[in-house]
Order: sequence, then C-alpha cells, then structure tokens
Amino acid sequence: MFSGAQISLYPMSDDFIGVIMNALSALDPYRDRLRIETDDVSTLLVGTPDVLFAAMRDLFVAAAKTGTHTVLHATISRGCPGEPDDPICQTPALGGPLSPLAERKQQALAAVAQTPVSGQPTAAQFSLYTLGIDQHMDEIYGCIDFIKSSGVFDRSKNFCTKLRGDAGAIFATVHEAFVRFGPPAGHVTIDLTVSANSPTPL
Amino acid sequence: MFSGAQISLYPMSDDFIGVIMNALSALDPYRDRLRIETDDVSTLLVGTPDVLFAAMRDLFVAAAKTGTHTVLHATISRGCPGEPDDPICQTPALGGPLSPLAERKQQALAAVAQTPVSGQPTAAQFSLYTLGIDQHMDEIYGCIDFIKSSGVFDRSKNFCTKLRGDAGAIFATVHEAFVRFGPPAGHVTIDLTVSANSPTPL
Repeated sequence: MFSGAQISLYPMSDDFIGVIMNALSALDPYRDRLRIETDDVSTLLVGTPDVLFAAMRDLFVAAAKTGTHTVLHATISRGCPGEPDDPICQTPALGGPLSPLAERKQQALAAVAQTPVSGQPTAAQFSLYTLGIDQHMDEIYGCIDFIKSSGVFDRSKNFCTKLRGDAGAIFATVHEAFVRFGPPAGHVTIDLTVSANSPTPL
Repeated sequence: MFSGAQISLYPMSDDFIGVIMNALSALDPYRDRLRIETDDVSTLLVGTPDVLFAAMRDLFVAAAKTGTHTVLHATISRGCPGEPDDPICQTPALGGPLSPLAERKQQALAAVAQTPVSGQPTAAQFSLYTLGIDQHMDEIYGCIDFIKSSGVFDRSKNFCTKLRGDAGAIFATVHEAFVRFGPPAGHVTIDLTVSANSPTPL
C-alpha cells in the first residue's frame, strides 16, 4: 500500500510566505511518521491516512487562525497501482475484506462523533474517486449517504460535495470517506479544497 | 453528456478581490456558451470541453499577468453518471467509438502543436481519472505517453504529472488529455492545479 497527498496552502495575503512559514511548525508532531518533499507547486506527504489527515488539519488551522483568507488544496491517494508499497504507509485500517456498506457508514459516523473541536469555522468541498472497479457509483453513493448524516454536510454540488462546520469534524469526515469507501486495497483518490475566512457572503 | 468544472482562483495578495474582479472580464467572450454559478469556495462552469479550457486559460492568464503569485485550481468532469444530459454540453468531440490509443496520441500532439502562445510562463500539475472501467491504468499510461511528448512535460510526481511551459500549451495539453483518454461517453475527471509567479526556486 502507498498513501499520501500532494498539498498546497494558499493564504490570500501579500505576506503569504510568512503565513505559510509560521504554519509549518504545525507539522512538527507528525514529521517522524511522514515523508515530505516540496516544490514550487505542492508538498508531498507520504504516510498513513490518519497521520495525513491530522497533519493537513493542523497545518490548515494554524494558517487560518491568522484571520487571512486561506485555502488548502489536497490531491489524496491510496492504493495507486503505479506506486510501490512503502513501510511508512502500513496500517491495519486498510486490511481485510470490504464489509457491508451500512456497517461502514456506522463506523464512519462514530469516528466523526469522537473528533475534538478545533474552533476554526471552515468550508470545504471534495470529490471521492474509486478507481478500477465497475460499480464505482455504489461506493460513491454510499459515501454520500454517510456525509449527509455527518453533521457537516452543506449541499451537493456538481462534481463534488460541500461541507461546512468545524475544521476538526470536516477533516475527520473526509478521512472517513477516504478509508471506508472503495475496496481496502483498492485505488481511491480525493480532490479536496478547504477554505476559511472567505469574504464572499454565504 | 454533462461536462464542466468547479474552478477557484487564488491570487496570493492583500488585493485578491481586485485581482479576481479584474480577471473576470476574460470570461466575457465565453459567457453565451457557459452556465456559471459562484459560491464562497468555487465557481461552476458548465459547457463543452473546448470552451471550458479556453475560458479557464484566459481567466488564469489575465490574473497571472498582474505579476501576483496566482494559482487556479479546477475539478473538471465529463460523463458523470449522476449528472443529467445538458444541451449546452453537446459536442461531436465526445461521440463515436474509442479509437486505438496510438491514433489518439497523435491527434492530441497535433492539437497541442497548433496552439497559440500566450506569453505567460506557467507550472501545472494534474491527475486524470477514468472511472467505472476495469482497465483504467491503460488509458492513464497512454495519456502519460502523450504528455511526455507534448513539449510541456516537466516530471512525473506521486499522484500527478507536472507540466511547465507557456500557459497556452499547458491548457491545450490538459484539454487533450481530458477529451481523448477514457471512453468518449465515459466518466472522466481531472484534478488540475496551475501556478504562475511562484517565488519558490525551481
């Protein structure tokens, strides 16, 4: 298994470099469990999904708490057939057979309910792609059912689902969508955008 | 067929609203062929792929020419089984059977070669997803072969392919990837990030 994300942080500020540099210390608690590579477009994080989502959440919240309109985008992937297995990505969360959809929805809701509050109001939207399987829309519709009960569902949009709420619950919800839908060893990706402090009226 | 994109423009500037507002006039030549809806996270464009990509290119170039570090992100989709057919999306470009991969690669290269130069140096990265088919990696590897000959290939990264060159050739290359790979009536999506004026050294 290989899992990770290409992430980018966009503070809409003349001081975007300062905002990003100050936020980076939020990654420190996770650095021993991530491989990190940066270029001019994005930063690669390689690690298990739980560590990836916690690190993305803390990085985003650190930047958003400055009050700057800030967006984090992430291209998240697991099980891509073109990527090698990597010891840093090994996790029991992605083993075993695919259990019934109803059971996975309940497990996902229970996990979101236990998430601590971050205090950062957040909007987000994401698309889940389960690849290389014929019945990909069954998994996607099952995931959408879970999202609608998650407490952070805002609305369905064309090509994505929009969330609104506390950053903690939002990252927990997308994490659950990522690990519980699509086959455990399958190729699953997410296109995620998370935004705070937008001046656009809702 | 339904095709469109959720797009967001991120100027890293205190005057991000001004940069976005000034760039929006670049969409004017396309407004009669697009349906446009905006909220606080993204703007939906619905239309045929040729119009979508031309509109995204002109919007991005208009913002980037200010010299501000600017990023455009787009979640692009065609043929999603959950979306209704829409007359504004009808195009002969997505009809007929799937021709051999080698033939499609040649057509894509010819189209990119004919693209006018915009004068805007640009970096980009994108992921192509062909959904609901078993052999999705064959189409993706075929597309990567085309990209490597396109003249704007920079390098393969985990989860995506990175491009560098003129904005005109970059948007043309991603457009060709979108319409020529995966079944013509199939569900194909792209997660696209385009960046200009980054202060990060290459």
